Amino acid sequence: MAAPSLDHIRALDAADPLAPARAHFALPPGVIYLDGNSLGALPVGTAARVADTVQREWGSGLIGSWNSADWIGAPQRLGARIAGLIGAAPDEVLVADSTSVNLYKLLAAAIMAQPGRRTVLTEPGNFPTDLYMVQGLAQLVPGLRIRQAEREAIIDAIDDDVAVVMLTQVHYKTGHRLDLATVTAAAHARGALMLWDLSHSAGAIAVDLNTAGGDLAVGCGYKYLNGGPGAPAYLYVAKRLQDRLQTPLAGWMGHARPFDFDDDYAPAAGIARFGCGTPAIVALAALDAGLDTFDGIDRTALYAKGQALADLFINVVEAGDTGIALVTPRDPAQRGSHVSFACDQGFAVVQCLIARGVIGDFRAPNVMRFGFAPLYLTYADVWHAAQALVDVLHTRAWDRPAFKLRGKVT
Amino acid sequence: MAAPSLDHIRALDAADPLAPARAHFALPPGVIYLDGNSLGALPVGTAARVADTVQREWGSGLIGSWNSADWIGAPQRLGARIAGLIGAAPDEVLVADSTSVNLYKLLAAAIMAQPGRRTVLTEPGNFPTDLYMVQGLAQLVPGLRIRQAEREAIIDAIDDDVAVVMLTQVHYKTGHRLDLATVTAAAHARGALMLWDLSHSAGAIAVDLNTAGGDLAVGCGYKYLNGGPGAPAYLYVAKRLQDRLQTPLAGWMGHARPFDFDDDYAPAAGIARFGCGTPAIVALAALDAGLDTFDGIDRTALYAKGQALADLFINVVEAGDTGIALVTPRDPAQRGSHVSFACDQGFAVVQCLIARGVIGDFRAPNVMRFGFAPLYLTYADVWHAAQALVDVLHTRAWDRPAFKLRGKVT
Repeated sequence: MAAPSLDHIRALDAADPLAPARAHFALPPGVIYLDGNSLGALPVGTAARVADTVQREWGSGLIGSWNSADWIGAPQRLGARIAGLIGAAPDEVLVADSTSVNLYKLLAAAIMAQPGRRTVLTEPGNFPTDLYMVQGLAQLVPGLRIRQAEREAIIDAIDDDVAVVMLTQVHYKTGHRLDLATVTAAAHARGALMLWDLSHSAGAIAVDLNTAGGDLAVGCGYKYLNGGPGAPAYLYVAKRLQDRLQTPLAGWMGHARPFDFDDDYAPAAGIARFGCGTPAIVALAALDAGLDTFDGIDRTALYAKGQALADLFINVVEAGDTGIALVTPRDPAQRGSHVSFACDQGFAVVQCLIARGVIGDFRAPNVMRFGFAPLYLTYADVWHAAQALVDVLHTRAWDRPAFKLRGKVT
Repeated sequence: MAAPSLDHIRALDAADPLAPARAHFALPPGVIYLDGNSLGALPVGTAARVADTVQREWGSGLIGSWNSADWIGAPQRLGARIAGLIGAAPDEVLVADSTSVNLYKLLAAAIMAQPGRRTVLTEPGNFPTDLYMVQGLAQLVPGLRIRQAEREAIIDAIDDDVAVVMLTQVHYKTGHRLDLATVTAAAHARGALMLWDLSHSAGAIAVDLNTAGGDLAVGCGYKYLNGGPGAPAYLYVAKRLQDRLQTPLAGWMGHARPFDFDDDYAPAAGIARFGCGTPAIVALAALDAGLDTFDGIDRTALYAKGQALADLFINVVEAGDTGIALVTPRDPAQRGSHVSFACDQGFAVVQCLIARGVIGDFRAPNVMRFGFAPLYLTYADVWHAAQALVDVLHTRAWDRPAFKLRGKVT
């Protein structure tokens, strides 16, 4: 299949109803940023929002801003905003801590609520921190079993000892997408709870937890949500489960009356009980500005554009006849918004692309990963990036003496 | 005892070698801020430091800043800075998560490392989140016992089943200070580990963990360290214990090789293993600027000034003959850098003071709390604040119709 012409690409951009969204990001000139699946780009509104929180709310308002600026309400307020991106009700999502810590909270809560079930089922090659958190929990909880099954075999692996099935919907390396509703229903059919990691989903593809009968989910704030490096994460607990579950990370922000300073923990009603320490207000301000970039955006058009960008990238690269192998499913319904190719020289290739201003990343042993954040990428960006990849591969740019490998990009 | 004259006070300020430090804070005009023990004031350098992290490091550097701006090293780099304030070696402190989460990590690590000991000993009325975190842990760990003893009786309460003694050095409400070395030695004498919460100590009084034979500690970044609302917290693990202990919050940032993306958790050597999720870079930038306010400061003079300010406050208030009772120890060696008075009308009194620009806080049922952050308070500030308190009490200002109670200040 021939690559589309640049004229055709320009026509797509000219007709793109989402084109104005790009102006909401402060991307450096000359850069095509295909790593928004790892760290989202900086929104133009973030600096002012953070400065206002620092200077006016903290500097002038001081301690009083916990009330006057409603800092205390930020975890639930931002949670309600994220709920709109993952098909949850506003009071089912809380912003707090990191993805790792939130995984631990919900894993432990699910285990504690089901004393007759002792297995956490997950997949090999899940995002490492997901696997590590359950391994850490198993160090502490005698008898907790961890079982792994490949994602194609996961449904058959659910048995009556499984307390919770923990999966990342869109795989960080391959981009493969699991169907929320199908896997959730399979877990329920065996009486297990389902815990989704939506880090590579939310903001890039349609996610509808409630329609899928979702139980538990976590996700990160710094990828497609554009909340900044190490932004606070979120957690989702379906309304019907909130008062049945309790996290062992029983911090004062999850207490029913934190400012009574009681000696005894009493969990708050609802989603608030899953809070722990004092909310990170400056970081929450940056995340809030990141979420602003979704305001007024037609979600259906957004997700369709993400898929179209990924299709375009695949088509142009494959038309280039470079011989690298597509890792990600070709069917848009089976993938997220990033695309991976396997290539033995992948690390060097990605470095060559970065030297040309095309930023993707590399995951060992041989995966080149390219993310298509539909809010700030144009069709022309993607076309040029794909052409650059083809050129690097055809010319073996990494063999040239002028090219020096830079440090590993995380 | 008569209150000192304002002329005398002005002479103290004129002779204060720390007076220039106040210029490093952006305090609003007309405010005397005696709540730095709850939320530190905004340093003048913070806004620019945060803006640089947001705009240059994130906006321009994008994903590459994990390496080029050494974001990945921030938790240890800032830990090393805090080490200098708590008498620890640079590689014994890590900045991560919240105080609550760090308490859980170290409590669980101490329990897991001592299977023959099942008791956590603490005091009633400890800061609530400290109590709640151990209660949460006990929900998950069968057989874990929580015992409480008043701080005067704590040493006698340590027995051979105690795995860890968990205490806040300076009590959040009374200001009472425990001697680090004495209590740590008593814990060791019974084979227990000692876990200190330094949230109300670090940056305000001399803390020397290593001299005291310290094992474990946590503390918060947003009080005397001036790191901003909800700033990342820190944890300390003595070098000799680091490779013996392991947290169940086994996130990828504590892995020996996080970017190998292995399926199996392997803890990093040293303090790094106590990391968990992705570091909160924007919040860490604000904390870094907060720590700058200690650069070049004579620590001995700093802590002496804090005690002198507290002494002055007590003297002026008591000279006012208002009848309110000092809760905090009169001996500077037995207290931190905040002072509490008991008063049945305490809530209303604190609100009247806030209306006059003197910001302290109230803790139920009857405690008025005033913090003396020696970096940014003058002797005149404290003299005026004490006079205002005396005046509010003598005139029963809260009875006047013009005064309306505002919402509770957390």
